[in-house]
Amino acid sequence: MSEESNVMKQRHSLSHIMAAAIKNLYSGTTTVQFGVGPAIDNGFYYDIDFGGVKVSEEDFKKIEKEMRKIINKDLPITYSERSRKDALAWAKENAQKFKAELINDLPEDETISFYTLGDFEDLCKGPHVESTGKVGAFKLEKVAGAYWRGDEKREMLTRIYGLAFETEEELDAYVKKQEEAKQRDHRKLGKELDLYCFSDLVGAGLPMFTPRGTVLRQTLGEYSMQLRHDAGFERVFTPHITKLDLYKTSGHYAKFGAELFLVHSQVNGEEFALKPMNCPHHTQIFASRPHTYRELPIRYMEPTTDYRDEKSGELGGLSRVRALTQDDSHVFCRKDQIKGEIQNLVKLVRELYSSMGMDKMRVRLSYRNDEDKYLGSPELWEMAQGEIKQAAIDNGLDYFEMEGEAAFYGPKIDFMVEDAIGREHQVATIQIDFVQPERFGLEFVNEKSEKERPVMIHHATLGSIERFMSVFIEHTAGWFPFWCAPEQVRVLTVNDQVADYVEKVKEVLNGVILDAPLRHNELRYTVDDSGESLGKKIREATKMKIPCALIVGPKDVEAEEVSVRLRDSETKVKLAELNNYLRSL
Amino acid sequence: MSEESNVMKQRHSLSHIMAAAIKNLYSGTTTVQFGVGPAIDNGFYYDIDFGGVKVSEEDFKKIEKEMRKIINKDLPITYSERSRKDALAWAKENAQKFKAELINDLPEDETISFYTLGDFEDLCKGPHVESTGKVGAFKLEKVAGAYWRGDEKREMLTRIYGLAFETEEELDAYVKKQEEAKQRDHRKLGKELDLYCFSDLVGAGLPMFTPRGTVLRQTLGEYSMQLRHDAGFERVFTPHITKLDLYKTSGHYAKFGAELFLVHSQVNGEEFALKPMNCPHHTQIFASRPHTYRELPIRYMEPTTDYRDEKSGELGGLSRVRALTQDDSHVFCRKDQIKGEIQNLVKLVRELYSSMGMDKMRVRLSYRNDEDKYLGSPELWEMAQGEIKQAAIDNGLDYFEMEGEAAFYGPKIDFMVEDAIGREHQVATIQIDFVQPERFGLEFVNEKSEKERPVMIHHATLGSIERFMSVFIEHTAGWFPFWCAPEQVRVLTVNDQVADYVEKVKEVLNGVILDAPLRHNELRYTVDDSGESLGKKIREATKMKIPCALIVGPKDVEAEEVSVRLRDSETKVKLAELNNYLRSL
Repeated sequence: MSEESNVMKQRHSLSHIMAAAIKNLYSGTTTVQFGVGPAIDNGFYYDIDFGGVKVSEEDFKKIEKEMRKIINKDLPITYSERSRKDALAWAKENAQKFKAELINDLPEDETISFYTLGDFEDLCKGPHVESTGKVGAFKLEKVAGAYWRGDEKREMLTRIYGLAFETEEELDAYVKKQEEAKQRDHRKLGKELDLYCFSDLVGAGLPMFTPRGTVLRQTLGEYSMQLRHDAGFERVFTPHITKLDLYKTSGHYAKFGAELFLVHSQVNGEEFALKPMNCPHHTQIFASRPHTYRELPIRYMEPTTDYRDEKSGELGGLSRVRALTQDDSHVFCRKDQIKGEIQNLVKLVRELYSSMGMDKMRVRLSYRNDEDKYLGSPELWEMAQGEIKQAAIDNGLDYFEMEGEAAFYGPKIDFMVEDAIGREHQVATIQIDFVQPERFGLEFVNEKSEKERPVMIHHATLGSIERFMSVFIEHTAGWFPFWCAPEQVRVLTVNDQVADYVEKVKEVLNGVILDAPLRHNELRYTVDDSGESLGKKIREATKMKIPCALIVGPKDVEAEEVSVRLRDSETKVKLAELNNYLRSL
Repeated sequence: MSEESNVMKQRHSLSHIMAAAIKNLYSGTTTVQFGVGPAIDNGFYYDIDFGGVKVSEEDFKKIEKEMRKIINKDLPITYSERSRKDALAWAKENAQKFKAELINDLPEDETISFYTLGDFEDLCKGPHVESTGKVGAFKLEKVAGAYWRGDEKREMLTRIYGLAFETEEELDAYVKKQEEAKQRDHRKLGKELDLYCFSDLVGAGLPMFTPRGTVLRQTLGEYSMQLRHDAGFERVFTPHITKLDLYKTSGHYAKFGAELFLVHSQVNGEEFALKPMNCPHHTQIFASRPHTYRELPIRYMEPTTDYRDEKSGELGGLSRVRALTQDDSHVFCRKDQIKGEIQNLVKLVRELYSSMGMDKMRVRLSYRNDEDKYLGSPELWEMAQGEIKQAAIDNGLDYFEMEGEAAFYGPKIDFMVEDAIGREHQVATIQIDFVQPERFGLEFVNEKSEKERPVMIHHATLGSIERFMSVFIEHTAGWFPFWCAPEQVRVLTVNDQVADYVEKVKEVLNGVILDAPLRHNELRYTVDDSGESLGKKIREATKMKIPCALIVGPKDVEAEEVSVRLRDSETKVKLAELNNYLRSL
């Protein structure tokens, strides 16, 4: 958003109003020195040195009240200029050392401007709204620490963030969405729903998946594999380590060598690396025997864990991990097969995200530009870029094109999906590669009995399963679709008299096998026949976000039915109908 | 077999006869010095210094002929003794420096004995058969190099191996079995059937599995998981690396620290290890939330790849690898649940190996002895050993007991199965562990609301999937059971006229889903509709050991059937019956 837009002017003015309010409230008891106070996305902040006084969110009510006073006065916000000398005198007079530093750092010929509202004056380039009454809706948000000028050797200031929008409705909507995002935080839900855990003994960024979390990752991963199996992909298996020679040949070592996890053999001193990607390994399977054109395309897929060395500070939940499981695929094909393969992949990506309830999708088509860093002939690029675009058009994708965003080895399509609260996440990718087949000397025998080089296509459907899980947990708020919920059904008994009938219910449940979207998906259920009250059992099942609770009481026994309680509805289902009913969920 | 047994005496005598023959043949042209020549399983060998003359398997005919001459003479083999001084004089006179060394190394009071046949005399403790005519059947086998006294700093001698049995029939049977083993060698079949490959760029001991090999490993692995799933195990997932702290706590670091693959972060210098086993990781999942006695037993399973640092020289095919995928399970249970859990596991191990056609099974029960290296109370050991034995008896297992063979952390059951050519392989294991729960401070809340320590049970069903594959490939000679064959069916067309009918056949095949022993096992088939002759197509399918070929010619089209060709039989099946027929294979 432009600085000149009304809402950005409003946000900027609010940061001045907050500073004025704080000066009014605190300058009697302490020296308040101001740093910078810009408008930002969703609001504003101001970095302030409170001279040792601790200011926390408990003070927000007081500060907001003072701000509203200033707003209600509808004071004009007026522009003025000062010479450098006068500006520095102003800073000195007002004991504003940070402002003095800013003034000193301004270029020689820069106009030094100030904005004034009431008796509060601030060094500022603007722009602002005309008067304090025109600032729209706001709300102070949070307090954080911030080093002056982002330099950890300088003073630590108190940064107060505010949210600000043109209308109360927009502000409310934003606050609600933030609250929603907090409720959906996959780190919170991961713990509450017992999906994964960390251990200090194992290390940061190395999640371990509990039985529930493993069901989720397997179910999602198997569905992704099923789609690719049906599209002609065959599973392969490669080790997690390799000699460095593999990456020296592929070219990865020269580019990313310093980021590899190195593996050392104490037995004989050999050096290996943990694999951060799988393409070089897959080339070695392709190269392990001769191929003819009749066999192409050859399509490998492998769900396997890669290791990337992220800084500990950057790790959090499943969004960023050191052990990431890629649902990786590689196609080896002739040049004239690229088009068909892209179509094949686009189709399966759409089907997968549609099954996940993530239909809102955009794609970025990344092309080369005129720089000469791109490998492979310009004609090949032209052709591949044309086919990527055609695939986007043919599939009615919402696409945009970016020149200069391609990988050095070929053009690509990146898929972005929107989650339930409107956030966009980059997920699947399709990348054409003219380089690795060359570097590894891959070849097949063509119709003329000549040796020819195949093209490689890299594809990830879910991407990293861990990262996708973080997105999916937040997208669903932990209310997973029935087919992939770790515990799909929980039987809740009303009392002990129903024990025999529960056996009959279990017999039915043991025979339930879901068929879509994942084939042969055997029902996962538990029985809560503890002595607790039904109310407590229902609360427990709801807390664990079990999509379907089957309540069994004496009346259900009599009627040969169960009382079904879904997330947002209830119904009765005859035992004879239960299998079909569950298969339809 | 005892040294005193007739066949061992025969073998020992044959080694002398070979030495005599070699002396006769070579001593004119070179100095032949003899090392040692013992009887061994299946035959004998003699280590010989030929004074620079190269002896190879091409010389076997000549040597065997000379040996038969000596045998035919039926020379008596006679015992004599010499004083140390006379013995050394004999060695010197005959220029036998290795014998002199052996004599010098004999204890002071040892009787120094010799055996003589014809004019060949040898330092030897015996025993031997009475005369050279009584040596049974033999055949020279192979030549290898061997360091004198196994010391690589000493002389390299030529070791000539012979096979020897009491009868020609036994010898023939053994030779045939050896030939059979060679044909079944999984390294040979792995290449012929395109199951796995190695790459110099990736490294020794790091197999990569092609689509065919991956089907095999997945199918076997999934069946093992299915059995455990049905027995109450839940899948978990853990990373392949960990901070060393995990193994310092578990105690593995102190024992095996020097054998770990170490992993180094170049980004921040952190040190990790590649996991060589999974139990410590699984304790961390158990410990990630509180448990009550009602939840126990908690049963985790995880098929995951472990890394063990073997010397390059020890690596070969899939028998010994650096990346081994364990179908690992861990039970956390109360002491009074150990019995039930062992029964549970023994049952599933039997079912699995029975499905693999490996019913011939022995088990070793490994107990503690009186040494004080064992951790955990003697009562606990007594109880656990009793229950292991009871489980063996209750399940009618062919067991034997070994005191002092237990792990320091608890007693165990190891399962050994016999393959199709009578070789025994150690496979599954069940190990009780009193120690890791203690070291990791694992606990649950018991009926009295007190904290109590669980017992851990380690279990591997197939063991390492790679090693099991090496056994299974050799057991089946690559003719895998229908349910786990990588390519189960290949449709072979007689000519182009059947193209439309083949579509109908494919429609049937697409609907075939096998249910046993692995559930929901979708049929894997290909179509060979190339222009090659039917004969060539059949040979190709046989070469790849496809269990079922469906031949489709014009007559089959007319009769609405297919000609089924199995490994050892042929039949016709109506198209309408094909699905049921295939499901019955």
